[in-house]
Amino acid sequence: MAPSIVILTCMEIRSDPLRMLGLPLGGAHTVQNAGGRASDDAIRSILDSQQLLGTLEVIVVHHTDCVLAKTSNETLRERVDRGLDADISGVDFLPLGRDLIASTREDVARLRASPGLAPSTTIRGYLYDARTGTLSPVE
Amino acid sequence: MAPSIVILTCMEIRSDPLRMLGLPLGGAHTVQNAGGRASDDAIRSILDSQQLLGTLEVIVVHHTDCVLAKTSNETLRERVDRGLDADISGVDFLPLGRDLIASTREDVARLRASPGLAPSTTIRGYLYDARTGTLSPVE
Repeated sequence: MAPSIVILTCMEIRSDPLRMLGLPLGGAHTVQNAGGRASDDAIRSILDSQQLLGTLEVIVVHHTDCVLAKTSNETLRERVDRGLDADISGVDFLPLGRDLIASTREDVARLRASPGLAPSTTIRGYLYDARTGTLSPVE
Repeated sequence: MAPSIVILTCMEIRSDPLRMLGLPLGGAHTVQNAGGRASDDAIRSILDSQQLLGTLEVIVVHHTDCVLAKTSNETLRERVDRGLDADISGVDFLPLGRDLIASTREDVARLRASPGLAPSTTIRGYLYDARTGTLSPVE
């Protein structure tokens, strides 16, 4: 049976996203990127999940102590430029900013405003405390 | 200690990506999207992983019996259009095509050609057989 949940979270979250939510292996689709951002590609994946496998619920999880909350586009571009002389001026590294409640809300809002998602989709945000292992809903 | 590996794989792979590679929790960053595609956002995540956490190795894994190998952009756009009347004509759903060796090679090549990745980065592709649980290198 296809899962009806998709979890969007960070590539470096220090917990198994499924276990974090008390789900078994195969109990949700897991979309992971730097920060757990609602990027265009995360939205593509959620649309695929919904259209091909009937997903009805999206859970966005940002986490404390995330390296993407402690950096900026300018810093990242400078680091790549300095090391590699590569033109990456067009890349948005999607830093989270210091306020992880705000970044979670922002990504939930972006998903809710996305054309293509079924209007009945439930989209909720959570903040994961990487130190204590607790998950708190972000209203 | 930050992991030095990032795994790029599908959101619906029916195995824990870390366990599949014999790695412990926290042993790699896991980037997951529909298909395990080397999308712009996957590349952003890998750049973040490399710049902020020193990742040196990228492993791309596509898997058999993937729903994205059995569909097309046209089919997906039609489904969304029919159900929701939403304008998603600009969305590329990044279907894999039937040849998963070719899609794995394509994504490895896309990563190798990406500006911003350190030239010393090791990038390898694998095909995961979802039925037998075996992982085969794609040369």
